[in-house]
Amino acid sequence: MHDDIISKLTEIFVRFPGIGPKQARRFVYFLLAQPQGSLQNFAKLIAELKTDIVQCERCTRFFILGVKRFPLCDLCADPNRDNSLLMIVEKDIDLNNIRKLGVYNGQYAVLGGLVPILEKNLEGRIRQTALVKNIEHRLAEHSLKEIIVALSVTREGDNTVDYLKVLLQPYETKGVKISIFGRGLSSGTEIEYTDSDTIKNALLNRH
Amino acid sequence: MHDDIISKLTEIFVRFPGIGPKQARRFVYFLLAQPQGSLQNFAKLIAELKTDIVQCERCTRFFILGVKRFPLCDLCADPNRDNSLLMIVEKDIDLNNIRKLGVYNGQYAVLGGLVPILEKNLEGRIRQTALVKNIEHRLAEHSLKEIIVALSVTREGDNTVDYLKVLLQPYETKGVKISIFGRGLSSGTEIEYTDSDTIKNALLNRH
Amino acid sequence: MHDDIISKLTEIFVRFPGIGPKQARRFVYFLLAQPQGSLQNFAKLIAELKTDIVQCERCTRFFILGVKRFPLCDLCADPNRDNSLLMIVEKDIDLNNIRKLGVYNGQYAVLGGLVPILEKNLEGRIRQTALVKNIEHRLAEHSLKEIIVALSVTREGDNTVDYLKVLLQPYETKGVKISIFGRGLSSGTEIEYTDSDTIKNALLNRH
Amino acid sequence: MHDDIISKLTEIFVRFPGIGPKQARRFVYFLLAQPQGSLQNFAKLIAELKTDIVQCERCTRFFILGVKRFPLCDLCADPNRDNSLLMIVEKDIDLNNIRKLGVYNGQYAVLGGLVPILEKNLEGRIRQTALVKNIEHRLAEHSLKEIIVALSVTREGDNTVDYLKVLLQPYETKGVKISIFGRGLSSGTEIEYTDSDTIKNALLNRH
Repeated sequence: MHDDIISKLTEIFVRFPGIGPKQARRFVYFLLAQPQGSLQNFAKLIAELKTDIVQCERCTRFFILGVKRFPLCDLCADPNRDNSLLMIVEKDIDLNNIRKLGVYNGQYAVLGGLVPILEKNLEGRIRQTALVKNIEHRLAEHSLKEIIVALSVTREGDNTVDYLKVLLQPYETKGVKISIFGRGLSSGTEIEYTDSDTIKNALLNRH
Repeated sequence: MHDDIISKLTEIFVRFPGIGPKQARRFVYFLLAQPQGSLQNFAKLIAELKTDIVQCERCTRFFILGVKRFPLCDLCADPNRDNSLLMIVEKDIDLNNIRKLGVYNGQYAVLGGLVPILEKNLEGRIRQTALVKNIEHRLAEHSLKEIIVALSVTREGDNTVDYLKVLLQPYETKGVKISIFGRGLSSGTEIEYTDSDTIKNALLNRH
Repeated sequence: MHDDIISKLTEIFVRFPGIGPKQARRFVYFLLAQPQGSLQNFAKLIAELKTDIVQCERCTRFFILGVKRFPLCDLCADPNRDNSLLMIVEKDIDLNNIRKLGVYNGQYAVLGGLVPILEKNLEGRIRQTALVKNIEHRLAEHSLKEIIVALSVTREGDNTVDYLKVLLQPYETKGVKISIFGRGLSSGTEIEYTDSDTIKNALLNRH
Repeated sequence: MHDDIISKLTEIFVRFPGIGPKQARRFVYFLLAQPQGSLQNFAKLIAELKTDIVQCERCTRFFILGVKRFPLCDLCADPNRDNSLLMIVEKDIDLNNIRKLGVYNGQYAVLGGLVPILEKNLEGRIRQTALVKNIEHRLAEHSLKEIIVALSVTREGDNTVDYLKVLLQPYETKGVKISIFGRGLSSGTEIEYTDSDTIKNALLNRH
């Protein structure tokens, strides 16, 4: 029973973010209840996903092929964005979340992951080569003034911040400001239940 | 932006059971991060799902093509099962859950859904024609003695039980017993927090 | 700081069912914000609680002193209840939950607890002496016909059922029926997610 | 039944923070199961709570009577604390949470509440008179340099910040800095799920 098509598809869905074995199996039965035409269409979209969507050579985010200035995405190719600012984010969804707020007009670099504690082999985890190339380009072509690190406040996020501080040190020497997203009270935070790190940061960053 | 491939795939995943727009979008970015070979394989499995898996002509459950006695599934074709018992379940997953317990050796009929309150057009919701055909066959070929209704205890489940009682009435007249899954305290039930229906059933069905 | 009045009261509230140290402390500050008159009233009610409320000599439930037939509670003293039925429950709240449904008109016995797995010294845990006395009285005075065990379906609940079966065996020999609350699907149960014990009971107790 | 002692005590417990009717009733039955001596002790502590604990004349926090410099609490009476800093918090528990971190050595003022949206009558809600008196004292006696507003980031918290900005304006004119707890990413914040206000603040307060 373990190598039938239901089990194979269940095993694939189990690897999807946030999906357990029970829900994975429900997905397969959900698909079984769809008309064959819908499944063909779904399969076609999946097979074509990575031919229609490519990675930007500069910021490494995914974008829809067909925009004019391939191999750059619409953000990296946009002459109206502020090329003196570069924001480092973990993933495309973070970039999209920040982008839609409309409060930042600079450029981005997508790391593609975080640096796990005690991890030695980093290139498989974060896109360091692309990041360095992105920075070097912006230093040469544009007057890059600030790199903003915008990572989640988790153990791996903090570890990545520490790693990036060392990695970006040479650019700081060359006059590029390295800044970190401000820490403090976030929306909904109640003082009574706030951990000590957040209180310390809120006190330190009071204004 | 609404007709690009990311949005199209997101819209498909949103229809999956229990998936909201945010998680649907995460699924697409998760797929983007997979190697193209994995996506091709995934797409192939989806496209072939319904050619490898067919619906049993008798009980309407899905099964893997390749067993000997097509168009019957391995359960309906099994001469060692007790053909005097027929259990009506809502869906394949319910059947699998009950089957793996090994406490029931009769046959099954999968309804494919429940009867919503106030719904008129039922054939789109439950597989009534197939159910009746299944029962008629078992009455003619085998000595069907009991039909067991094994549905969830929800508003729609109870409504379906009421509907089936009327539908199955003629068979009761012919001597087939129509029984319902027993109601009472289920595992983990605490008397302090138990609703009145369950207490009444537990009192009524005490033994 | 550990023996001040705030800490002392916090330590008392921490023992309340479901209350952790943080909420216990919030309770104390909540009390500090109340007018002194309210606190005096609250303190008086607590001090008088057990002089106003006594335990019924027969069923051992708590009741408000002042009813006519002390030392019996209003249920045990009620001539209109069916004295041929005796229901064993774990605690007063369970009794109240069942009583308000109005589907049972017999008498009760409150155990006061459950029998933990591997526990030897039971009198501290369940009110066995009072239970036996209650049964003996009803056998002598009334024609007790059935003892209904109405306990939660938990490991300790099931252990207590096993214990009571042995304890009540002599009465079964004398013709008293010993019954257990019916097991099966309770309200809201979905077949897909139901554990094997409940499915087995639902199948066994189908009707 | 509604005016018996069980109902009266249940009604009192229902007003405790975070307690519903069911848990309130469980509290009463929990108390019924305690020895009378424990209840007497509990009642005594409640009755004496507000004679042992008094409110500091200056910061309005509650403290245990018996410290040397009544009517001031141990914090307000401590000559080693930095009297140039005054932190405004909502309640005692917030003060204790911040205090135990050991990162702030200034003085406090407890508001006793927040300013609800659209509320006119404020003295019942926040201890404004005491706050002003506290500030005036510290301006006169000590060289007060900064007032730090440390409130929860909720609608009422933000409304209170706005209210305090107007109230404290005259002191700002006199050279006292009015600062607000820093806003930004708090511990555990994931960029993907962060609301726009927090992202904006994190970007604005980057460093």
